[in-house]
Amino acid sequence: MTGGLNLRSAISTDLYQLTMAYGYWKCGIHNRKSVFHLFFRQAPFGGSYSVACGLKQVLDFVSSWQFTDAHLSYMDELRGRDGKKLFDPDFLNDLKDLRITCRIDAVPEGTPVFAHEPLLRVEGPLWQCQLLETPLLTIVNYQTLIATKASRICMAASPDPVIEFGMRRAHGLNGALSASYASFVGGCAGTSNVEAGAQFGIPVKGTHAHSWVMSFEDEPAAFAAYANAMPNNCVFLVDTYDTVQGIRYAIEAAENLRREGHELLGIRLDSGDLLTLSRQARALLDDAGFFNAQIMASNDLDEYEIARLKQLGAPITLWGVGTKMVTAYDQPALGGVYKLGAYVHNEGSWKRVMKTSAQAEKATLPGRLNVTRFYRDGRMVADMIFDELDEECSQQPVHRMSDESVSMEWEHCEPLLIPVFDDGVIQIPAVEIEDSRKRCLDGLQTISPECLALNEPAAMNVFISKGLSMTRQVLRRQMGGSWTH
Amino acid sequence: MTGGLNLRSAISTDLYQLTMAYGYWKCGIHNRKSVFHLFFRQAPFGGSYSVACGLKQVLDFVSSWQFTDAHLSYMDELRGRDGKKLFDPDFLNDLKDLRITCRIDAVPEGTPVFAHEPLLRVEGPLWQCQLLETPLLTIVNYQTLIATKASRICMAASPDPVIEFGMRRAHGLNGALSASYASFVGGCAGTSNVEAGAQFGIPVKGTHAHSWVMSFEDEPAAFAAYANAMPNNCVFLVDTYDTVQGIRYAIEAAENLRREGHELLGIRLDSGDLLTLSRQARALLDDAGFFNAQIMASNDLDEYEIARLKQLGAPITLWGVGTKMVTAYDQPALGGVYKLGAYVHNEGSWKRVMKTSAQAEKATLPGRLNVTRFYRDGRMVADMIFDELDEECSQQPVHRMSDESVSMEWEHCEPLLIPVFDDGVIQIPAVEIEDSRKRCLDGLQTISPECLALNEPAAMNVFISKGLSMTRQVLRRQMGGSWTH
Repeated sequence: MTGGLNLRSAISTDLYQLTMAYGYWKCGIHNRKSVFHLFFRQAPFGGSYSVACGLKQVLDFVSSWQFTDAHLSYMDELRGRDGKKLFDPDFLNDLKDLRITCRIDAVPEGTPVFAHEPLLRVEGPLWQCQLLETPLLTIVNYQTLIATKASRICMAASPDPVIEFGMRRAHGLNGALSASYASFVGGCAGTSNVEAGAQFGIPVKGTHAHSWVMSFEDEPAAFAAYANAMPNNCVFLVDTYDTVQGIRYAIEAAENLRREGHELLGIRLDSGDLLTLSRQARALLDDAGFFNAQIMASNDLDEYEIARLKQLGAPITLWGVGTKMVTAYDQPALGGVYKLGAYVHNEGSWKRVMKTSAQAEKATLPGRLNVTRFYRDGRMVADMIFDELDEECSQQPVHRMSDESVSMEWEHCEPLLIPVFDDGVIQIPAVEIEDSRKRCLDGLQTISPECLALNEPAAMNVFISKGLSMTRQVLRRQMGGSWTH
Repeated sequence: MTGGLNLRSAISTDLYQLTMAYGYWKCGIHNRKSVFHLFFRQAPFGGSYSVACGLKQVLDFVSSWQFTDAHLSYMDELRGRDGKKLFDPDFLNDLKDLRITCRIDAVPEGTPVFAHEPLLRVEGPLWQCQLLETPLLTIVNYQTLIATKASRICMAASPDPVIEFGMRRAHGLNGALSASYASFVGGCAGTSNVEAGAQFGIPVKGTHAHSWVMSFEDEPAAFAAYANAMPNNCVFLVDTYDTVQGIRYAIEAAENLRREGHELLGIRLDSGDLLTLSRQARALLDDAGFFNAQIMASNDLDEYEIARLKQLGAPITLWGVGTKMVTAYDQPALGGVYKLGAYVHNEGSWKRVMKTSAQAEKATLPGRLNVTRFYRDGRMVADMIFDELDEECSQQPVHRMSDESVSMEWEHCEPLLIPVFDDGVIQIPAVEIEDSRKRCLDGLQTISPECLALNEPAAMNVFISKGLSMTRQVLRRQMGGSWTH
């Protein structure tokens, strides 16, 4: 297959990553071992969770990452305000042979995660970590946003399948491919995007559009022609002109199909009052003996509209969702960030760092972080973010904001971050989209329904370890001293 | 340079385009000459206009479009509900040699356009037109959306420059590339996206992030190290810890720079109350004699926040805009559609068609459409959509909804759509991003300020021709007969 998800270009990054890498190089600290975490501060859509997604692309990106001669020539031409070259030729020469040797730990794709938990941890030479910041964010922010949106839409429609129809509203053709990938991980049953079908094995779905109907003398002629061409793939779109009349014509076509030994798969409603029209359609189809014909709905659907229609008993059994899924319409960006947690000091020991902020929520957690997930009776009880540099690695959880100790009961626990890339080599079997999707669906099953509610969900317990809490308090005191004079 | 804007894949389309193409082929009407229009029904963001964008990618896509053996093998494996192959092998064989021979007329990239006006007109064999629907929409919808958003943001900031910083929030790395392209067309002065700089020649901008500051003992050490590494490219980000203290440290670093013969370019504020902080920063910088140091602001900016800050007199002179530009945050999708306008009938004459709808706004215009733009005193007076199949091609404008005649005064006029692609060959010189940007900026100058207002803008006059109006009335009567029984 042609194309792919990524540009796979080392200059697919923000300029300031290059200028910072250059600065580190000039200071001679570019190879200093550092650890960065990619996380978000708040789950999107007012929800409690996100579905981690993008790891497949991340591994693809880092394992093929390098500066080409063309990249370096371009960089060599860049000038500062004074007209002088922005970069020293020796720096560019050092970039030529640079490959990603960082160790990357990641939450497996499809795992439900919560605010402040690292989805990726990148550890290695400072300039490599820095150069990766933007592309890792670009990949993970979008994929995680869409997988999360899709999971909400699929839960609202459950047990009915949802098909992703968003290609024409995505950020270009590659953006559409990412959207289809993440939507499937989040629980969709298929996509209309044929390229996504070919590249990822996602089931592809679709029959015809309004333009089919408009290409014939009238609606009966259009349906008859379609039935004749593809007797076993008929889902008639009935709203090109008058919807109820369209349903009647679809039934006439279905009767002809049946005489020839074929069954109508269904009809699709793409405008109007979907509740009323689906009821009319069901009644007309049933009256005509087409009890198994499905009613598919599309047209600006999202989790709220689907939940509303289902609650009112709309006899819709198949949902096509486009724009609002692939653009995450009500919150079209995930504010994932990538922050330094620690680096190896001149003396060879780790120095933990944190960004402080007037807004407590914007402060970062110091150290080399991982997350322990605790379960009881097959349900997730809590997560605890801890610092692997903390030698005691205390499994005593405390509240993230108040630092107060917590007691809880649990049966087993597991770490969320696992090593996925080291020294230029991928450390895990190929990420398979079906596995990621299953991990998402299984993972959501372990979360309490209260935490999964579309509106005003309960918060999942995300604690920090006692050790991490103590490190943070020490740092706060130290930093307080350094910036309050 | 590696990568590119597009997948350039013929299967980058919705499945139903393939099934419809197959249906047309089975009916023997796949080569029937047809004409489709790509347009939107409402300008985004409550505005009056959009900036047409995406033509460069469209031409790239259609001129390299073909089904590869891998595409056809994949399609050959697709099955219907009955387990039988979805496509006849003879159909796939006919696709093998298919290339786009359609004629495409387009509004030049960067042109301001209005609702219901075709941005693209695609004319040729029905199945080709149909197969192009999805990718053309994917490309044009997103690029037009972002160019429009960027134009609004740049107008709000004018005469200050706006830099696009949105890469990490775009739909993947290729999505980011499209975003940078369209943002520049819409008026941005630069981007942080280095790949976009290399591919399109957009000026690249940026200096350092919070992680730079966190990689040093303290803020003064971080600024000193940066100044030492890149003395002529210093815009210090001052809000890693305490912003006002950060400004003081930046000034200390600037004083050292000045002693060595270099000047501070500026500081960047990325959080907090930008009005208060920018005033404090300006006062501190001026007191220290850094009158030319610029104050750059970023952090969730959009046209409304920039307008507000400027109205209040915030001394910010450079704006970095990311998330809200590249995701078009307040309306993250443009509802562009692609509709059949006419086709050549069995008898060899054109048959005009239109989609009707209970919602009058959703009805389409029939024919083979173009737009005449009328000017007077260098200002746009009105547009008139007309049907080139109407032999009289009456230049008498009428109201689009009421069909009432309009009289207006104008000095000169020009057609908006020009031939850009025919018989597999691009018909215009290479689309240059600088030309598109200039066309946008010049075009907006011809629109009245009332139509450009951010809030509650006046509507531009978009009329239809008398001939088009009459065709539509005839079709309405005909169709009324066919679907009201």
